[in-house]
Amino acid sequence: MNTNSRNLTLLTDLYELTMMQGYFKTHSKEHVVFDIFYRRNPCGGAYAIACGLDQAIDYIKDLHFEQEDIDYLRSTGFFQEDFLDYLKNFRFTGDIYAIPEGTIIFPKEPLVKVIAPIMEAQLVETALLNIINHQSLIATKAARVVQEAGGGVMEFGLRRAQGPDAGIYGARAAVIAGCIGTSNVLAGQMFDIPVKGTHAHSWIMSFPSELEAFRTYAELFPDNCLLLVDTYDTLNSGVKHAIQVFREMREKGIHSKLFGIRLDSGDLAYLTKKARIMLDEAGFPDAIISASSDLDEYLINSLMNQGAKITSWGVGTNLITSKDCPSFGGVYKLACIIDENGTEIPKIKVSENVEKVTNPGNKKILRIYDKASGKIKADLITLEDEVFTEDQPLTLFDPLATWKRTRLEAGTYTIRELLVPIFKNGQCVYESPSVMDIQAYCTQEKATLWDESKRLINPQEVYVDLSRKLYDLKNQLLDDAHTIKD
Amino acid sequence: MNTNSRNLTLLTDLYELTMMQGYFKTHSKEHVVFDIFYRRNPCGGAYAIACGLDQAIDYIKDLHFEQEDIDYLRSTGFFQEDFLDYLKNFRFTGDIYAIPEGTIIFPKEPLVKVIAPIMEAQLVETALLNIINHQSLIATKAARVVQEAGGGVMEFGLRRAQGPDAGIYGARAAVIAGCIGTSNVLAGQMFDIPVKGTHAHSWIMSFPSELEAFRTYAELFPDNCLLLVDTYDTLNSGVKHAIQVFREMREKGIHSKLFGIRLDSGDLAYLTKKARIMLDEAGFPDAIISASSDLDEYLINSLMNQGAKITSWGVGTNLITSKDCPSFGGVYKLACIIDENGTEIPKIKVSENVEKVTNPGNKKILRIYDKASGKIKADLITLEDEVFTEDQPLTLFDPLATWKRTRLEAGTYTIRELLVPIFKNGQCVYESPSVMDIQAYCTQEKATLWDESKRLINPQEVYVDLSRKLYDLKNQLLDDAHTIKD
Repeated sequence: MNTNSRNLTLLTDLYELTMMQGYFKTHSKEHVVFDIFYRRNPCGGAYAIACGLDQAIDYIKDLHFEQEDIDYLRSTGFFQEDFLDYLKNFRFTGDIYAIPEGTIIFPKEPLVKVIAPIMEAQLVETALLNIINHQSLIATKAARVVQEAGGGVMEFGLRRAQGPDAGIYGARAAVIAGCIGTSNVLAGQMFDIPVKGTHAHSWIMSFPSELEAFRTYAELFPDNCLLLVDTYDTLNSGVKHAIQVFREMREKGIHSKLFGIRLDSGDLAYLTKKARIMLDEAGFPDAIISASSDLDEYLINSLMNQGAKITSWGVGTNLITSKDCPSFGGVYKLACIIDENGTEIPKIKVSENVEKVTNPGNKKILRIYDKASGKIKADLITLEDEVFTEDQPLTLFDPLATWKRTRLEAGTYTIRELLVPIFKNGQCVYESPSVMDIQAYCTQEKATLWDESKRLINPQEVYVDLSRKLYDLKNQLLDDAHTIKD
Repeated sequence: MNTNSRNLTLLTDLYELTMMQGYFKTHSKEHVVFDIFYRRNPCGGAYAIACGLDQAIDYIKDLHFEQEDIDYLRSTGFFQEDFLDYLKNFRFTGDIYAIPEGTIIFPKEPLVKVIAPIMEAQLVETALLNIINHQSLIATKAARVVQEAGGGVMEFGLRRAQGPDAGIYGARAAVIAGCIGTSNVLAGQMFDIPVKGTHAHSWIMSFPSELEAFRTYAELFPDNCLLLVDTYDTLNSGVKHAIQVFREMREKGIHSKLFGIRLDSGDLAYLTKKARIMLDEAGFPDAIISASSDLDEYLINSLMNQGAKITSWGVGTNLITSKDCPSFGGVYKLACIIDENGTEIPKIKVSENVEKVTNPGNKKILRIYDKASGKIKADLITLEDEVFTEDQPLTLFDPLATWKRTRLEAGTYTIRELLVPIFKNGQCVYESPSVMDIQAYCTQEKATLWDESKRLINPQEVYVDLSRKLYDLKNQLLDDAHTIKD
């Protein structure tokens, strides 16, 4: 397997390292709890999909400073020798909990929880955010595209991805979220995921004629014979020549496993309907019609509504960059300090914007399912030591509008804890499933969402509530914060 | 130096490899000319900045298939043994010409020209586009941001970049385009570019009080002392405490090289004007006011117009993802086939959209400067063998509106050829300058643009014209294309 492993220890913001040195000099013994969470779902949706944990695990496992890294840091002039000495034997020794990849997630709940000595917890902020933000973004975008297409989506965006990693890990995220394959061969090799593709306009143009280009391709790849029909004139040249080649294959007794046409330009609704009639009339009702051309979930939705005859979708730029929303706003916030005696001191970040106030303390997330339908009822963020059991009635209330309450009777709901242990005392205790297994899990996860939360326009938000104890703690800390200390 | 070198040979779309096998079986002897060009400037601007060549060179130099790559390709079932055998000794043996990094570029002109055996030229399409598209995008976006700020821009986007490479190479592109530094330590190490940063909210929150956090930071980093003032209350707490700490430093006789405040939230126009008054009245007119918080070129322009007192800008998400335009539409199109006898057969890609018709043939680009001002007059795309000299009058005409003509008298203009040799017969003949030298060159390049082409709203496009010979060739091929061959 081509792991392309790299030393990413310095993949961090300078201020993580200057703060580390500050903690080293002043209060290095403390442990802290940091949460990664996000505030708003991408693309106006009502959910996101957790992704990137596997790469985050590799990053944490590999954390170490090479001599050249120490030398480089020294050369910047920011660091002192005792701190650089400390870095020489630096390893991550803390605990990490995370929501598994492929899980449906909602704003404000911790996707990743880091409990570690303050210096270690600070260092890993930037890279963890970079990895989780990127991959969760692309998984979420891909899920939206796949949902509107109803399946058959191929990820074709490598050439427009924001660098090699964006192409490689974007392809992985897209497959986790339901794409049936990628054009990206390196991603196929690294993650054992299906690779797809046929030919480009340059193939057609390198032959004296379109027909000869098609005929040659069909001879070479009879079982993966999607012919690109829009190089010269889609209906009058491309589709006609494709049909001629399919006829020739049939006359030779070749029964292709996969054959059809691909359109990469023009009015896809009009052209695919016409092409479908031409193919059907020629006796090829099983010929695939594949389309690509600046597709996204909105255009696919529109094409489906127009009755376009497309059975397979190649989605590139808009998926691999999440074009209408190219960043996932995951943040990494201090939730708790654990002092040298083991006492937990919950911390809150105040903001003038009430939605930006953080949830304090060492927390967990309980997902509450409707027992009858298996659908998600709500998520409940609680403190780590709280106990909830399914044999008790449960009252949920909205943390921003506390008069809104829902009482769930015992026996009508089930509870699942979302955060699972990933690292314990620096040792990885979690094994990532294969990408295709995560894809299967993600498909189950998507089925736990109500349809109303999946629609493109004005989707219904899913409730993320706080336990009474956490709610009270938060309000108490907010009250305290009004007394500014100096 | 941490090069983090990786084998990216399989970083390609599957169809490049299936087409390669097709060429291998049918017409492997041909050479071809492929052009990378783009059709529209990002973000509604009138120019872009070429970037990514250095990484493209590394990619081409490293191209080779390891045994594990061959084994993987075999496992996909698409490839035959004779082709896999050929891959074992595959190296790039062709020529590449490119516009140097940091150069101002315009739509439709070849940024990169690959002249190589058809199989080699086809393989490299995807990775070259991926690298050039990403880095040119971020360089262009960063140039826009730097232009509006008038300098003092730091790249702070790593945590929101689309994966590690997007952060690393995005930082490089941002510095090339004029950012004074990056928060990204790995990019600092890899490219010898300045790294910047101080502390986060978590630093403040890890201390019993804001004042103690500031005081400790000032003791540790007296010469890089930008205090983050918005954790609790910007004016009533943060700025007051910062001033107190600056006074204490002054009383101790510490004269900091760099000190001031950073704001990361709130109304930056209002708060920075108030903070400036407070700092000035306290006797700290040289205190820096640094701002970050979802900045982009439009918000910076607005803040400048409002008289915000900001001397230093930290720009993250919107720069590193080019949020309003997260892809650069570079394409790779066949321009010419060179047959076994060395005869050039120009090729054109027809499209129903006149702007999508490609320019055929083996071409070069001449940049025409106004001799008096040094500003760009126009670019002229010509065939490779055409000769233009500055001692002759030159008539330019618009290829889409041929009645628009400009005659330049001899002696009033200068000519520069933009494409330079990068590879000859597979050997690299070009050495990339250092990133900071490219930045200096890029600054000169930006000075060759008229102000009218740099404004945010409705910028004046720069003319990219065709030589008469190229224009006639294009029209002749378009006429021929109407006779569809079969």
